[in-house]
Amino acid sequence: MTSTVQQEKSRQVAEILRELDIDLWLVWVRETSQVADPALELVLDADLVWESALMYTKDGTRSAIVGTFDAEGIRPLAVFDEILTYDEGISSILKSKIQKLNPSSIAINYSRNNVAADGLTVGMYEILKDYLRDTPYPNRFISSEDVITRLRGRKTTSELDRIKMAVEITEKIFDYAKKFLRVGISELYIYDIFHQQMEKYDVGNAWSADHNPAVDAGPNKQFGHSGPTENLTKEGHLLHFDFGVKYQGYCSDIQRMFFFGAPSTIPEEITEAFVTVRDAIKAASEFIKPGLKGYEVDALARDYVLERGYDEYKHALGHQIGRKAHDGGTLLGPKWERYGDLPEQVIETGNVFTLELYVTTENYGQVSLEEDILITKTGCQFLSRPQNDLIYIY
Amino acid sequence: MTSTVQQEKSRQVAEILRELDIDLWLVWVRETSQVADPALELVLDADLVWESALMYTKDGTRSAIVGTFDAEGIRPLAVFDEILTYDEGISSILKSKIQKLNPSSIAINYSRNNVAADGLTVGMYEILKDYLRDTPYPNRFISSEDVITRLRGRKTTSELDRIKMAVEITEKIFDYAKKFLRVGISELYIYDIFHQQMEKYDVGNAWSADHNPAVDAGPNKQFGHSGPTENLTKEGHLLHFDFGVKYQGYCSDIQRMFFFGAPSTIPEEITEAFVTVRDAIKAASEFIKPGLKGYEVDALARDYVLERGYDEYKHALGHQIGRKAHDGGTLLGPKWERYGDLPEQVIETGNVFTLELYVTTENYGQVSLEEDILITKTGCQFLSRPQNDLIYIY
Repeated sequence: MTSTVQQEKSRQVAEILRELDIDLWLVWVRETSQVADPALELVLDADLVWESALMYTKDGTRSAIVGTFDAEGIRPLAVFDEILTYDEGISSILKSKIQKLNPSSIAINYSRNNVAADGLTVGMYEILKDYLRDTPYPNRFISSEDVITRLRGRKTTSELDRIKMAVEITEKIFDYAKKFLRVGISELYIYDIFHQQMEKYDVGNAWSADHNPAVDAGPNKQFGHSGPTENLTKEGHLLHFDFGVKYQGYCSDIQRMFFFGAPSTIPEEITEAFVTVRDAIKAASEFIKPGLKGYEVDALARDYVLERGYDEYKHALGHQIGRKAHDGGTLLGPKWERYGDLPEQVIETGNVFTLELYVTTENYGQVSLEEDILITKTGCQFLSRPQNDLIYIY
Repeated sequence: MTSTVQQEKSRQVAEILRELDIDLWLVWVRETSQVADPALELVLDADLVWESALMYTKDGTRSAIVGTFDAEGIRPLAVFDEILTYDEGISSILKSKIQKLNPSSIAINYSRNNVAADGLTVGMYEILKDYLRDTPYPNRFISSEDVITRLRGRKTTSELDRIKMAVEITEKIFDYAKKFLRVGISELYIYDIFHQQMEKYDVGNAWSADHNPAVDAGPNKQFGHSGPTENLTKEGHLLHFDFGVKYQGYCSDIQRMFFFGAPSTIPEEITEAFVTVRDAIKAASEFIKPGLKGYEVDALARDYVLERGYDEYKHALGHQIGRKAHDGGTLLGPKWERYGDLPEQVIETGNVFTLELYVTTENYGQVSLEEDILITKTGCQFLSRPQNDLIYIY
């Protein structure tokens, strides 16, 4: 029997705890169908109803304390060495288990910077401190940010296989789009055909269905997290997509640019913008490697665009993808307030990033591309086939 | 144009804030596709990517501060009077907006007791306090537990219509089950047919698909949050379901008991158990009314069962249903540690509860039923058709 993703991820934890010299990682959750700690689905493919403690030690032991009714559902998943259960309240069994482990540091899921490591709610944190009052353990709590950034970022074989398949299906749907796209059809019509294709390939949305794909028929559409409209495709103008699918829980995230007209009719300002975006991404892909910090790669692409006389793009050059299209962790972004310290985190082998940016033309709206890359030991490899030319529809 | 559920819910907020004398309710979120505050979907049908502040005042004003890329998606939803946007960081615009409102109390989403009111993460809480440092406002934070308990619990007309439809479809599928159930088929086979029916009615799962419906073919199956197995239905034995569907975002949650054999063959101990469970639910339904506390209703049913010589059921008599099968808020439960103070909350008109309990027989496993009720001004009305007799398959 092959390992599940959650078995693979669970096995990664101990090594990461050893690297960081953290004794215990505690995932502390309840009613996860209401408030889902994003760390949970990495290591357990099940919802938990009652207050539950998942405990991973540096020595490689993995224990769970869950309500009686939850235990049967998680036992067959074979991700814990030990499953303890309770009926009326978890506090005494939790306290005695932690006393037995006696960790000198306990990583719990809060983080200012990495949303994927910030699944612990304020109420649950208060409860945890209360259950462990009169013990030294609340003073040993630390943020699990580094644990989760590494765990989530270091993709296992099964995770990579799924991301690659998500990318492949996304590209097949873009290939199909070449066949049906024409002048005079609405963004909504195009959107519907993309969703029929997604159904055909049996994949889900990498983000909210209402703006996946984002379909932007030039020149007057503001890009962003808004949905398709009755706006029509136009001769001599651009069409932009931001599209991602979810295959067996893992995402792709790719932007493509189409042009309605023959290559000979392409306005110079579009060509210049397209080449700038494409080559900025190319330059970033040639520069990126393990050990660099996120902002260093962003700065290279940002400067590239600025030097060519364009305004800078108002987002990060790249985010990690995985279970989510925005997977958290190290960010290829500028040191802006809203990014916290994620741009200062280190790029690691096995991370999967987007490389994406836009520039704005005078008369044709924005030109924006996005590729998906895997960090290798020496640099990166493209998971998507990079878009080298506009896709001409005529 | 009719109102959306989110417009109805948004309009309910001001009155609740006035009742509780709270100046401002602040929903403070980011990357809601990763960590979803359960309060968000009540008032906004969209995900938010960057740090976002949704602000509701006692006077009825509703403002949002969101990232530029998020604004376009939420404007058409018409749930805010004002949408402010930012690019690099939210802190200065947030601070100045709150200074302008100058609230003497700010309800934020943390709660030890009500999971539906505990959507604020520890990291986001730290960020909020940091952005408002050097102002008096962090000292004015209070828990929004009472706001959310009332807002979530007081179902609007559109919400009730959806719950009623979810209940109706659930019952239609149980009716269909009468036609195909027979001795010697597996729980997994039955589960698949339920899911085909759900597809036919185009409804989703009220909880994790893997144990919805829970299908328990007696006598040796432990009930709980576990999925169907190869276990077969048996002549002279019980079959139990716990089943809920989601219709346009709203849930049902119903348990039913079938028996394989003619009514004349029914063992006395099953009849006695069934009547006890049915009549305990009936007694609770006749007792429940607005103004009572949750534990008072639970105690009535619990005593009823104990007096008849059965062990007490190891869960609450009833939880609210709504967007979630376990919708949080006032609970018809005993004062056990894991329920916090929810059993001491007050039952209100417009709440929708389950009434559910089980007793254990010596030779036939558990007998468990669950009905859905709406609290009215004077008592309650059943939304499900209460199960008065075992459903005999022979």
